Amino acid sequence: MPAARATLDRLNSASREVFVAALGDLFEHAPWVAEAAFDRRPFATVAELHEAMMQAVLASPRERQVAFLRGHPDLAGKAARAGAIAPASVSEQAGLGLDRLSDAEYETFQRLNGAYLARFGFPFIVCVRRQTRDAVLASYEPRLANDEAAELKRALEEIAHITRLRLVEAVEGPGLPPVAGHLSTHVLDSYHGEPGAGIRVELFEVGASGRARIAEAVTNAGGRTDEPLIHGKPLRRGRYELLFHTEVYFRRRGVALPDVPFIGDAVLRFGIDQPEGRYHVPLVVTPWSTATYRGS
Amino acid sequence: MPAARATLDRLNSASREVFVAALGDLFEHAPWVAEAAFDRRPFATVAELHEAMMQAVLASPRERQVAFLRGHPDLAGKAARAGAIAPASVSEQAGLGLDRLSDAEYETFQRLNGAYLARFGFPFIVCVRRQTRDAVLASYEPRLANDEAAELKRALEEIAHITRLRLVEAVEGPGLPPVAGHLSTHVLDSYHGEPGAGIRVELFEVGASGRARIAEAVTNAGGRTDEPLIHGKPLRRGRYELLFHTEVYFRRRGVALPDVPFIGDAVLRFGIDQPEGRYHVPLVVTPWSTATYRGS
Amino acid sequence: MPAARATLDRLNSASREVFVAALGDLFEHAPWVAEAAFDRRPFATVAELHEAMMQAVLASPRERQVAFLRGHPDLAGKAARAGAIAPASVSEQAGLGLDRLSDAEYETFQRLNGAYLARFGFPFIVCVRRQTRDAVLASYEPRLANDEAAELKRALEEIAHITRLRLVEAVEGPGLPPVAGHLSTHVLDSYHGEPGAGIRVELFEVGASGRARIAEAVTNAGGRTDEPLIHGKPLRRGRYELLFHTEVYFRRRGVALPDVPFIGDAVLRFGIDQPEGRYHVPLVVTPWSTATYRGS
Amino acid sequence: MPAARATLDRLNSASREVFVAALGDLFEHAPWVAEAAFDRRPFATVAELHEAMMQAVLASPRERQVAFLRGHPDLAGKAARAGAIAPASVSEQAGLGLDRLSDAEYETFQRLNGAYLARFGFPFIVCVRRQTRDAVLASYEPRLANDEAAELKRALEEIAHITRLRLVEAVEGPGLPPVAGHLSTHVLDSYHGEPGAGIRVELFEVGASGRARIAEAVTNAGGRTDEPLIHGKPLRRGRYELLFHTEVYFRRRGVALPDVPFIGDAVLRFGIDQPEGRYHVPLVVTPWSTATYRGS
Repeated sequence: MPAARATLDRLNSASREVFVAALGDLFEHAPWVAEAAFDRRPFATVAELHEAMMQAVLASPRERQVAFLRGHPDLAGKAARAGAIAPASVSEQAGLGLDRLSDAEYETFQRLNGAYLARFGFPFIVCVRRQTRDAVLASYEPRLANDEAAELKRALEEIAHITRLRLVEAVEGPGLPPVAGHLSTHVLDSYHGEPGAGIRVELFEVGASGRARIAEAVTNAGGRTDEPLIHGKPLRRGRYELLFHTEVYFRRRGVALPDVPFIGDAVLRFGIDQPEGRYHVPLVVTPWSTATYRGS
Repeated sequence: MPAARATLDRLNSASREVFVAALGDLFEHAPWVAEAAFDRRPFATVAELHEAMMQAVLASPRERQVAFLRGHPDLAGKAARAGAIAPASVSEQAGLGLDRLSDAEYETFQRLNGAYLARFGFPFIVCVRRQTRDAVLASYEPRLANDEAAELKRALEEIAHITRLRLVEAVEGPGLPPVAGHLSTHVLDSYHGEPGAGIRVELFEVGASGRARIAEAVTNAGGRTDEPLIHGKPLRRGRYELLFHTEVYFRRRGVALPDVPFIGDAVLRFGIDQPEGRYHVPLVVTPWSTATYRGS
Repeated sequence: MPAARATLDRLNSASREVFVAALGDLFEHAPWVAEAAFDRRPFATVAELHEAMMQAVLASPRERQVAFLRGHPDLAGKAARAGAIAPASVSEQAGLGLDRLSDAEYETFQRLNGAYLARFGFPFIVCVRRQTRDAVLASYEPRLANDEAAELKRALEEIAHITRLRLVEAVEGPGLPPVAGHLSTHVLDSYHGEPGAGIRVELFEVGASGRARIAEAVTNAGGRTDEPLIHGKPLRRGRYELLFHTEVYFRRRGVALPDVPFIGDAVLRFGIDQPEGRYHVPLVVTPWSTATYRGS
Repeated sequence: MPAARATLDRLNSASREVFVAALGDLFEHAPWVAEAAFDRRPFATVAELHEAMMQAVLASPRERQVAFLRGHPDLAGKAARAGAIAPASVSEQAGLGLDRLSDAEYETFQRLNGAYLARFGFPFIVCVRRQTRDAVLASYEPRLANDEAAELKRALEEIAHITRLRLVEAVEGPGLPPVAGHLSTHVLDSYHGEPGAGIRVELFEVGASGRARIAEAVTNAGGRTDEPLIHGKPLRRGRYELLFHTEVYFRRRGVALPDVPFIGDAVLRFGIDQPEGRYHVPLVVTPWSTATYRGS
């Protein structure tokens, strides 16, 4: 993606060449999408610009859509390993660790990619920035069960997600389409009737092969973290765990706990389904009880 | 332990030889404990018999106590590997997997055992049937910090736990001392306002090196399991996890859940501190909330 | 109702005269119901006997059903005030205080009874032992909105409830139909991680015109009351309040509370819809939090 | 209190006459307090000005303090009924309804005032704007049990509360002392996993003689009320009830509830102890469960 973002204003008044130079890479190997959008200027918002580009794809004949999809690299494929894919794709796939798979994992992806390509004639496409690795893997099966029309529609929806994220990074301007989610927490100590302050919180992504810590914070005087645990980017669909270091918190406050406390370090497990959603996951805790719910 | 349990009645009227033959092994390499107890017959309850045996130990001079303790095998030690310890000890240590340690774990135990022996002059003794492996490991450090008198007292308390369990297995009769804990659960579905029926529940022991499933059940119409998850033996002090297969339960009942539910399979983490205690760990659950507390 | 209950055995072998003498009053001014049931002897269970009697009513022509319903007194009517109704009806209506209405309340009932009679041609019939007074009052409006067939069916359902209760009091035997509900509570103190013991609990029936205490108990060591708050009879449909004297409980246990505690005496409001249902209403409480749910 | 508030700047540079004219009434019949404060100008904050005035009171001899206290009207006394007290006192006492007592209530206050005056030699003084009527009544007994020194101190603390509130209304400027509390709520619907939107909420002050509605609001899309239920003034110490119209909310959303729902309109009872505190009282609710805790 470009070091400096273009502004929507500039794009609205730029020459066709400049416009296509700025946006031609957003849709993989398909500068014709930017060409088509150029003819529909001006755009009042960045969201409108994105819609115009997607409209160009959706209005094109099925063959052109499929050809466009075929221009995409395999997910976690040889090309990614060999560095032969578009720079944006490289960074997106790397974010999920798809360039660092074990051989067994690589084989799994190869097998699923092969089955998918054989079934639909284009590679499996998913906006990896909106998914955990486990969620990506879990999505092959239901998508393989789709009929061709439904799956073509679904693949283009993923294209919309991918390019919306790329556009927001490439262009400044009013009316940015929503691409970011929000995950926050809050500790309520119902033993003292106060916010739980100074509690270390760890956030883990939970997968079949284990869990990986992806954020860490300490609660402030209000029992919240100064920053949301995740914000400014999509939440990856998948399973998560919050670990609250409540044992040391209660001991520090002088609460007499058993050597092995009933609730020691509180753990909450939850799932995220909406990458652009707002998830608030509070912990209501005493040394003998925990509760959580989807808050707001 | 003997195939058939002696009865307290029989022991109360048996000859000294028979009495000592029946009970002489309970205290490791110390038939003198049974000898001393013989002189205090009759016993109204099995608990009284145990107290009399422990009294004999506690009333003996420090040197004899230490000699007695020195007669015990190292925990997870060479003797256990080589099969050179008392049969009861063999089975107790095996229950915790102490005879199947990796080399690294074996080294850790060796190091801690060595430090303990150097500090106190007798081997580290703990009633392993009342502890998870992690709890055993965690107990070295605080015990190494004890002064000699406190630690001698502590070691003899562990002897009392060990021999109480052995006695209950060896002798039938009235007034058995309490050696069993109780762990149960209960699922309340606050989406439907009903007990959560037909939900698979798995219980895991949680340790530093992972978790091991130790019980499994399905909730009945009342939301409980037909049998407690653990009963009839001590609860091992340590950390546990309950996993409730609530996602499939809610889907089966026709509740519309997201692809990745917020609360999918509910997870509760808790600790057990009292091996002979009664722990009830209910789950109050909807697709969007969970709560637990120490119940009764 | 009779001082001594007949047994089902005796009724199965009794003469027609004795049978009808024993059961002829259960259906108000309608000994023909008992007559019809006599011909279907023997009955294996008391429930079967009741079904046979109801079957006789339901199988009779509409005119006879309506005539039967017309034989019932007005609810809270002049006859009840004047003592001119069947003894069972007297005691049933008195249980709800329908014989002690204020003049305004009496007028309300008169007005609703009049509207109902004008609409359907028979008096408003409800099994008052399964309702609070407010629930009875609230039921006129939806029933007045029924069409004639639906309301005749509904009135006969109420007859079934009334006579089932009368039959269970009149006849001993196997297979009693279910006529009793169950209301219980349980206090879990999540500040101490223990059952809340020694807490006074008051149960109130809540109506538009205020609340009336109908039960009182003190929690035992397990946090429960020795007896359910209501059992052995139907639960009256309606709204209830449980008041737990938790402030004095926490102060007695040495918990430092503010002069005006956040949670002082905990209050739970709930409704009962199923008179023969099982309602368990637990309180999970700290000085700073309360929770309840329909338990089991 | 003055129609237009003086500014701290103006007071810092005003003549002694103007200064005392502006502030002389804050301390009942005691312009000498303002005189003393004049000599300690300038004040950087309004809070400092208040502290200086209180310092003048606290530094004066016991006789002068008592004389000052004796200049205050009886609470709910004859003077209030007859209109013979300072304008600020009139409005403060009226806020609590102390000018509209029944004869029995008036007698109770008279009796308690008499006992207090006899015991301490000055009238019972309390900052009525920080108390419910029940809290005021409940405070006589513990204060009558104080020794003289403790109660003199306590009475002067109440003077500080009274005059702090008056000063904040009389003077604009930086560093206002905290005189306002905050009471808010939030509805979390754990049946749908969303904020409870469009739910009517009523707040009642609960007293021995019943409850009075003091605020009402409807939750917004976030499940909160647009404004806090109480803010910008002290919270009255006492007992409260929140009534949430959740039955109509759940029915409107198409949830199948029993005719008499288990949780119909949810009710939370709680107490407020800190008039300048921040109280957040969330409701976590399904048709079968409720929970609350002191939030933040």
